[in-house]
Amino acid sequence: MFLPVETAHHPLTARFLAVRTQTEEICQPLQPEDTVVQPIIDVSPPKWHLAHTTWFFETFVLEPHLPGYRVFHPKYSFLFNSYYNSIGSRVLRNQRGTVTRPTLQEVYQYRAYVNEHMQEFLSQTSVEKLTEINPVLELGLQHEQQHQELLITDIKFILSTNPLLPAYLPKPANKLTSKAVKPVMLRVKGGLHEIGYQGKDFCFDNELGVHTVYVEDFSIMNRLVTNAEYLEFMQAGGYRDFRHWLGEGFELATTEHWEAPLYWFQHEGRWQHFTMHGLEDIDLHAPVTHISFYEANAYATWAGKRLLTEFEWEIACNQFHPDPAKGNFLEQKKFGARTATPGETCSQLLGDLWEWTYSAYHPYPHFSKAPGALGEYNGKFMINQMVLRGGSCATPQNHIRPTYRNFFHPDKRWQFSGIRLAE
Amino acid sequence: MFLPVETAHHPLTARFLAVRTQTEEICQPLQPEDTVVQPIIDVSPPKWHLAHTTWFFETFVLEPHLPGYRVFHPKYSFLFNSYYNSIGSRVLRNQRGTVTRPTLQEVYQYRAYVNEHMQEFLSQTSVEKLTEINPVLELGLQHEQQHQELLITDIKFILSTNPLLPAYLPKPANKLTSKAVKPVMLRVKGGLHEIGYQGKDFCFDNELGVHTVYVEDFSIMNRLVTNAEYLEFMQAGGYRDFRHWLGEGFELATTEHWEAPLYWFQHEGRWQHFTMHGLEDIDLHAPVTHISFYEANAYATWAGKRLLTEFEWEIACNQFHPDPAKGNFLEQKKFGARTATPGETCSQLLGDLWEWTYSAYHPYPHFSKAPGALGEYNGKFMINQMVLRGGSCATPQNHIRPTYRNFFHPDKRWQFSGIRLAE
Amino acid sequence: MFLPVETAHHPLTARFLAVRTQTEEICQPLQPEDTVVQPIIDVSPPKWHLAHTTWFFETFVLEPHLPGYRVFHPKYSFLFNSYYNSIGSRVLRNQRGTVTRPTLQEVYQYRAYVNEHMQEFLSQTSVEKLTEINPVLELGLQHEQQHQELLITDIKFILSTNPLLPAYLPKPANKLTSKAVKPVMLRVKGGLHEIGYQGKDFCFDNELGVHTVYVEDFSIMNRLVTNAEYLEFMQAGGYRDFRHWLGEGFELATTEHWEAPLYWFQHEGRWQHFTMHGLEDIDLHAPVTHISFYEANAYATWAGKRLLTEFEWEIACNQFHPDPAKGNFLEQKKFGARTATPGETCSQLLGDLWEWTYSAYHPYPHFSKAPGALGEYNGKFMINQMVLRGGSCATPQNHIRPTYRNFFHPDKRWQFSGIRLAE
Amino acid sequence: MFLPVETAHHPLTARFLAVRTQTEEICQPLQPEDTVVQPIIDVSPPKWHLAHTTWFFETFVLEPHLPGYRVFHPKYSFLFNSYYNSIGSRVLRNQRGTVTRPTLQEVYQYRAYVNEHMQEFLSQTSVEKLTEINPVLELGLQHEQQHQELLITDIKFILSTNPLLPAYLPKPANKLTSKAVKPVMLRVKGGLHEIGYQGKDFCFDNELGVHTVYVEDFSIMNRLVTNAEYLEFMQAGGYRDFRHWLGEGFELATTEHWEAPLYWFQHEGRWQHFTMHGLEDIDLHAPVTHISFYEANAYATWAGKRLLTEFEWEIACNQFHPDPAKGNFLEQKKFGARTATPGETCSQLLGDLWEWTYSAYHPYPHFSKAPGALGEYNGKFMINQMVLRGGSCATPQNHIRPTYRNFFHPDKRWQFSGIRLAE
Repeated sequence: MFLPVETAHHPLTARFLAVRTQTEEICQPLQPEDTVVQPIIDVSPPKWHLAHTTWFFETFVLEPHLPGYRVFHPKYSFLFNSYYNSIGSRVLRNQRGTVTRPTLQEVYQYRAYVNEHMQEFLSQTSVEKLTEINPVLELGLQHEQQHQELLITDIKFILSTNPLLPAYLPKPANKLTSKAVKPVMLRVKGGLHEIGYQGKDFCFDNELGVHTVYVEDFSIMNRLVTNAEYLEFMQAGGYRDFRHWLGEGFELATTEHWEAPLYWFQHEGRWQHFTMHGLEDIDLHAPVTHISFYEANAYATWAGKRLLTEFEWEIACNQFHPDPAKGNFLEQKKFGARTATPGETCSQLLGDLWEWTYSAYHPYPHFSKAPGALGEYNGKFMINQMVLRGGSCATPQNHIRPTYRNFFHPDKRWQFSGIRLAE
Repeated sequence: MFLPVETAHHPLTARFLAVRTQTEEICQPLQPEDTVVQPIIDVSPPKWHLAHTTWFFETFVLEPHLPGYRVFHPKYSFLFNSYYNSIGSRVLRNQRGTVTRPTLQEVYQYRAYVNEHMQEFLSQTSVEKLTEINPVLELGLQHEQQHQELLITDIKFILSTNPLLPAYLPKPANKLTSKAVKPVMLRVKGGLHEIGYQGKDFCFDNELGVHTVYVEDFSIMNRLVTNAEYLEFMQAGGYRDFRHWLGEGFELATTEHWEAPLYWFQHEGRWQHFTMHGLEDIDLHAPVTHISFYEANAYATWAGKRLLTEFEWEIACNQFHPDPAKGNFLEQKKFGARTATPGETCSQLLGDLWEWTYSAYHPYPHFSKAPGALGEYNGKFMINQMVLRGGSCATPQNHIRPTYRNFFHPDKRWQFSGIRLAE
Repeated sequence: MFLPVETAHHPLTARFLAVRTQTEEICQPLQPEDTVVQPIIDVSPPKWHLAHTTWFFETFVLEPHLPGYRVFHPKYSFLFNSYYNSIGSRVLRNQRGTVTRPTLQEVYQYRAYVNEHMQEFLSQTSVEKLTEINPVLELGLQHEQQHQELLITDIKFILSTNPLLPAYLPKPANKLTSKAVKPVMLRVKGGLHEIGYQGKDFCFDNELGVHTVYVEDFSIMNRLVTNAEYLEFMQAGGYRDFRHWLGEGFELATTEHWEAPLYWFQHEGRWQHFTMHGLEDIDLHAPVTHISFYEANAYATWAGKRLLTEFEWEIACNQFHPDPAKGNFLEQKKFGARTATPGETCSQLLGDLWEWTYSAYHPYPHFSKAPGALGEYNGKFMINQMVLRGGSCATPQNHIRPTYRNFFHPDKRWQFSGIRLAE
Repeated sequence: MFLPVETAHHPLTARFLAVRTQTEEICQPLQPEDTVVQPIIDVSPPKWHLAHTTWFFETFVLEPHLPGYRVFHPKYSFLFNSYYNSIGSRVLRNQRGTVTRPTLQEVYQYRAYVNEHMQEFLSQTSVEKLTEINPVLELGLQHEQQHQELLITDIKFILSTNPLLPAYLPKPANKLTSKAVKPVMLRVKGGLHEIGYQGKDFCFDNELGVHTVYVEDFSIMNRLVTNAEYLEFMQAGGYRDFRHWLGEGFELATTEHWEAPLYWFQHEGRWQHFTMHGLEDIDLHAPVTHISFYEANAYATWAGKRLLTEFEWEIACNQFHPDPAKGNFLEQKKFGARTATPGETCSQLLGDLWEWTYSAYHPYPHFSKAPGALGEYNGKFMINQMVLRGGSCATPQNHIRPTYRNFFHPDKRWQFSGIRLAE
């Protein structure tokens, strides 16, 4: 859980700037207008993400630790605090899309100002002090990486609601499509297993509390469910047959008239989907994406299988994932999952798509919240949400690991989420 | 999972009539007007409960199995189907409180008609046939017992919303109050444990799939949290301090202006609560009742403890609960929990109050839904709800066991629910 | 605006009892269960009407004027105050359907208690005193007559929402249907006219303030629009063609999927409607009923005509209505409008159906509110509502007159409302 | 109702460009981000206004009348149609604030493209043809002027919701404040009056249908109600006393916690208000602004007076308004009303603030909708709205006249609306 502070300031500064720059690169293709809106409550304006991640360093590093630091603007804490009650009142979450000032340019000035003071801070602070506050520094960077993923998924949603269906990036010149490997159920031995992060690098508090679980023998599919397979479910009337669904999921799917994954549109009799490169035909071999837990579970039920628990997933991931990981991550800028290709035992475990598990996001046995505002980081969300594992094509590559626990409500579909079957 | 059908029909008929009669006895103190309304969507009109439990026997026993049976009324299936999509369309759940016909008297005629035909059926059907359909017969009785508990909690809610605060039953003449025992944390040995129902009598499908879990050593409080203890939390500002709360719980408590358990009213500076005998002073020694999971968890956090998981609860219950159980059940007609008294190792495990656990209501590893409509009984609810264990003062005594899994959304407060602490 | 108090007490008592008894007769066919529910906010439980009209006499007559009078129950004012802020807080309007106590029987006891004290009051009070408080006595009776009409329309709505479609009264043995006369546009001379009540009997404050209006010459149809004529509009796609509609009306009709008047059901390809005698075929010659202002106006636009203003209506009514009126009123217990028959110059002006006018319900030039609580009777509703004129088949016969101004929001359909065309 | 087309094309082109340029000048102080958002459904994004007014000329002039014209973008009609059902489907009104593309710059390109083609059209079209389509040309310009006013009021609202309270324009250097004249009630003679537009220039269809009304003698206040006077009402508890209010108004004021006009904020014990120049102290002599009809009427009731009808207003305006008008209009860029100064018989009739009347926005006797899409311009709004008269400080000076009928729902407060009393 430490940055390599002992190796002088420069690497730390370099890492800080690398993360900060990556965030701005994500927003580079956007117009100022794109950065303002909040079409649904889940999706925050990109301008807000840019400022909020900056506010984090200002509030938790510069204000308490850089002597003489003056905040960039006294009202920005009110504007860019996300959910920290400890820090004070803030713009209501559902009102983020009405805040036009500061402008995008002013937010970039804010970023520059904080970056400059962070560099000053990192270069003039003693190793002892840096070591002491390293957890919050590192948390700030990991936090910004989380928002990098959210920026991608929020930008996709914002552009998708526009009747002009604008592309985030132009279509790549020659896009190769390959054939997905056949599905195979891989056997995993049960018994007692250690769950949770045991390494020496950074992890979130929700991964800590290493503990033992007992699982029975189980099987896991060697790849994610493909669009072709999911289309079968759709064509078999899966969205209209309550028997496959959890009750609340079926009610939602019916009320909202779901009949396909998010971003799918029927055009002249065939299915297309909105991507970061605009509207494209469905690639039948690629994994199905942008589905809710409800759909994932309905599909699994229809297929006579089930989803994994988060413990089974972690055990299998530890056993099968190749090192280094081969998935698509943020850095590849594909913004879509790879097709499972021959030669891998088990594809797409890390990167590509988050995988819904049938585990509620609850505290591990030894979980304890950090003191102060940062104790609000993870713990207070441990209800009503389901765990997703493995990262996605929008996750920074060095931000994911087998023990990483992501979580969303079971109805959410705007993340890069997919289905892995078990039995 | 069997009724004692082999011992001739009479005991079965007797049991059937006993359960059916108990339901009507519950409604005996009501006026016809009380049986019509649905003040919140969770609370069904008593008239509806009376008819729905009858519809269950008509639909799942008489129609398929009694030759020549004619339904009492062709539209009652539409009116009294609760949530079985397999059976067909039905009155919207939130419209139950607008259905004035059939009248209460007509519903009693419906009950009598179905009872009569059930007696006919039980007396003329072969043991082989009865053995074959015994699961559904028994399910009908258990189902009716569940609705007996719901009748009590729904009646309490209905009466409580009335500005006249009418009593369901007159106050008992001399109500004894005793002093609660001191709280003690009882040590329970961890390790591998079998979870799930292993007996030969009835259980629900959600208790099946016996499986092994590993738990660490833990401690469990020897009794439920008392009103006195909960008042300390309230007086310490517990309802206004976000640090104790899960985020969604705090938002709800704030929006809904919660400042005490459901049914508590402040009257001339002191707390009273609405009971089945009208308004009464709070008994400081009695367990705190009618709290949501959110409140239970906030209290536990404030107290520096935590809630149990459902596995820990089942292990502890198996270890500590006295046999026969000593709690208040429906049959005692106390409609309140006992105060924990000296001489018990661990009080109030079975009966008295349902205990919130920090376990999501999910399927056990080997869970499988029954085929047909009855497969909708439990499985489709396995999302977004939390498990409660142990039964309450509104539960029929022979309807509870250590493996019984009850479930409600974490915001619900109208059940007889309480808090047991762990660490 | 006076009761005939000078003719001794007996006629006054007789009139009082006649009105009071008529209210109870209206409720006589109901079951207790029918009297509790409030399926939509506009519709109050019959039990509430029975009690509220009684509360009016208790609050405005007995409490201030009968020495030593003790209220029947101290909480009934909270329960049965409708909207008088001057009198104090009350059950929220949308919660009336959750109040099960007092029971119907207790409400009848309340009525008997107040009736008894009213008789005592009327018989022992001096003529001078009675003359003085005559306005409030009379208002109480007129108020109760207004609630008689609401009872009819609310009962109809309550029964109509029941899947069993129960009849309020059995179908009459031999129901004669006659052919509607041909529509004729009757010419009315414009110029200066006096508007408002000029008689010596009772009228509401909103009819006072006699004032002059100037209208141009206009024509008025000799009868109401029939079901046959309205069906033409429906079959011409009238509900789906925005050009005939006011914008907010079209949005509502679209959102709510209106495709026919309220209470119309399509059954095996033909239209039926729910009546107080259960489901019946549409009588093509009868006037179309249970339509909103939006529908009335859309029909008129489609027909190339328009609705009347309330001034035009009053002028025409004064000119054409037969004396005595020939319409169906509450007392005939037809609960439907007469078909226009030959021999009348202009049919259905008084009684039969309320007629939507294209006049907003605003104060007349000299309108002034009464002092005190009764000032809340009419004045505060003078916004966002449209005037209806002429009374209906649910209006007590002696409760209507040409100057009577009824008012509802333009979307309301549960009153006996119809369409008269002008040009 | 004609542009001066007979005087060659140049004046027409000049007028067209003058109006179009004024719209862009209004948006000049905005940042791109400001032009995207829709904080409430009433307020449209400035970018949308800029495009919608352009779409009007493209759709109603260029497409039908300029041979060979190609639309700028095939999807813009879907994006920028406001409410014309005749033209086809469109972005839902409540979704305007999520549309980020086209960008502001692209919208300006759209405007330039349409302007260029309009100039081409105006310069090459025969006088006969121009005369024929003059009504729609002129309507396009008047329409754009209406949106100029909406741009001002929407921009004010958008900036006001921002916690930074940004100013639209810098505060003027030396702002003179003067003392308001004393209120005097001016007598107006009643009798028969002609209402509606009788001139030869442009007017809207809702002003046509000259007709006679009879009004009684009345008095009108010589100026608008001032902030000082309104503060008296507030300090007398006016917002909490139901007796002054229409029922629906009081319910709204209570639910929404209104306690002052829109944009008023209490700061260190004194009232300030948000203006186009940022936060300012209340000028006690200036007219109270940004109040709803409900507040205007409650104030008038409290003051023992009443509002005017639209007919009274028009009669008084014809009698008293100075020619030329002296009010503040859009062109003065004050964005606030003048204080009534000595020497005027009756101040602030034209310009300064819209004046709520107690008249519903209904059709005049001879009103008829234009054929085709433009028939949707005014007629379909003639329900549930109240008439305002006289224009405001955000109205273009040549866009107002005594017969002009503006209309808003009685709860709206974001327009520059004020109170004139009558009796």
